[in-house]
Amino acid sequence: MNKVKVLDCTLRDGGLTNEFRFPERYIKDHIRMLSQAKVDYLELGYKADPQIYDKAAYGQLKFCDDDLIRELIKDITTLPKLAFMVDVGRFDPKRILDASESPFQMCRVACYLEELAQAIEDVRFFQAKGYEITLNIMAISKEQISDVVQGLRKIREEIPFVAVYVVDSFGALYPDEIKNLVALYKEGLYGMPVGIHVHNNMQLAFSNTITAIDSGAEFLDASVNGMGRGAGNCPLECLLPYVDKNKYDLKPILSLIKDHFTNDDERGWGYCPKQLLTGIFNQHPVKSIQGAGEDLIQIYDNFQSGVEA
Amino acid sequence: MNKVKVLDCTLRDGGLTNEFRFPERYIKDHIRMLSQAKVDYLELGYKADPQIYDKAAYGQLKFCDDDLIRELIKDITTLPKLAFMVDVGRFDPKRILDASESPFQMCRVACYLEELAQAIEDVRFFQAKGYEITLNIMAISKEQISDVVQGLRKIREEIPFVAVYVVDSFGALYPDEIKNLVALYKEGLYGMPVGIHVHNNMQLAFSNTITAIDSGAEFLDASVNGMGRGAGNCPLECLLPYVDKNKYDLKPILSLIKDHFTNDDERGWGYCPKQLLTGIFNQHPVKSIQGAGEDLIQIYDNFQSGVEA
Repeated sequence: MNKVKVLDCTLRDGGLTNEFRFPERYIKDHIRMLSQAKVDYLELGYKADPQIYDKAAYGQLKFCDDDLIRELIKDITTLPKLAFMVDVGRFDPKRILDASESPFQMCRVACYLEELAQAIEDVRFFQAKGYEITLNIMAISKEQISDVVQGLRKIREEIPFVAVYVVDSFGALYPDEIKNLVALYKEGLYGMPVGIHVHNNMQLAFSNTITAIDSGAEFLDASVNGMGRGAGNCPLECLLPYVDKNKYDLKPILSLIKDHFTNDDERGWGYCPKQLLTGIFNQHPVKSIQGAGEDLIQIYDNFQSGVEA
Repeated sequence: MNKVKVLDCTLRDGGLTNEFRFPERYIKDHIRMLSQAKVDYLELGYKADPQIYDKAAYGQLKFCDDDLIRELIKDITTLPKLAFMVDVGRFDPKRILDASESPFQMCRVACYLEELAQAIEDVRFFQAKGYEITLNIMAISKEQISDVVQGLRKIREEIPFVAVYVVDSFGALYPDEIKNLVALYKEGLYGMPVGIHVHNNMQLAFSNTITAIDSGAEFLDASVNGMGRGAGNCPLECLLPYVDKNKYDLKPILSLIKDHFTNDDERGWGYCPKQLLTGIFNQHPVKSIQGAGEDLIQIYDNFQSGVEA
């Protein structure tokens, strides 16, 4: 697993659920905590074209102005690499600085397979600006394999220096399909890096990410508490301890959940972050049964001190 | 997948979350809907010893008196096979009828590995009464492999006609571990049937069940909405369409969820049964975005009529 890189997409995919209206305090806490957790990449939002999208209708991370981002990160010494996303064709080239002048290192270009020709042009534009690039081909569960193969050939021939994502926008893929698609990408792209971005509609987001790793994917998207459109994404708090519990720190992610997310463990049963901890630490569920008076961080510290003892 | 059998454990494992205090209307609806869904086995609760557990402190399904069960099922023409569970040593032999006189066909004996000697005696008792038997060895994530191997040898030599469950009580097993354990059971039991019962602490309950099937497990436990102790179980509504969408009917399970379970999809994102449907039917998440005014059954009918059109 040495090669895999974890990208947090909470503010971007989660922004699709609230028109990017995150409170400023949340955004700042998020950036600080994700930096402490040592994720490899942090996606902050879109660079959408304000001529297409009304700035008054969205929070600021829909547009990710470089000045705003600089202000948000100014107190943080060690940051993950920062990423923004653009929807193919829906950004303003005049608003894109060279990477060397921008707080961002990575640009992610999202498109449907039928938009690939335009996406290739956009990728070349951002490559010329010096950004590291991913190409995220959405809703892949709706595409014909033959069209995918043809698209991968174009990508490998025309933009060989990108990472290409398998994106299960509909959360509709079973493990075998993930395995086959990642293998198809690896083969069709002659070994270029492959990423995985999944949705949790069938409670398979985390396991499909594991399957993708096993099949050779290197870029892994996940979000805090799984926040993202529809059923949400692979929960970051599930993924980090699996990928590397020494490299990544789970505790800042738990702090974000504790401080900012609605407590949905009141019913006394069902998946919740407290029960995640009993699984990770291999403890009886009663040790986290909800309402036991201990908060998420106390439970984590108890389990962790048991590991260290 | 022809050989696999699905067992609903909602009333038994879910009963651990509410002291078995299910409303009578829920119990009746549950039995009726699970029968319509055509699950293979329906576990109704425990046959606990009323000399050990105070009858006033629990709902009736903690004790599963045969007369009560007969009354509950009297209007249903085609039932799944009915199962009850006993904790090793904590049942009253005098209260156990012969299977031929009882509404139950299956008895499930739950034990920890260290209780295996007693469990083997109990299994023999129930076998003599004519019940189909499963042996559920709990909290297997805490056991040493060498102890497991030794236990499996005893089981195969002394009670060869049972199905033996891998039980991840702590929801602590990753896919590779499930794969290895099921393979170990198959090998150690010389091919006797193996079952899988998982908990969802790391959002792996459904995928670990898939992995277990791929590794040769034949008995699959799941529960409606995933209801069960702690993080809950493999959600039945995820499992049924995966195993066989023609044999099993998903719609009665959705009706139970719609009529009886708290609506937890108000936040507009995150896993919920409506988003499960977009995954199963490979549809864009906006078609189920919560609060869109359509209920779970309407969304199901819309998607299903699209499939049939």
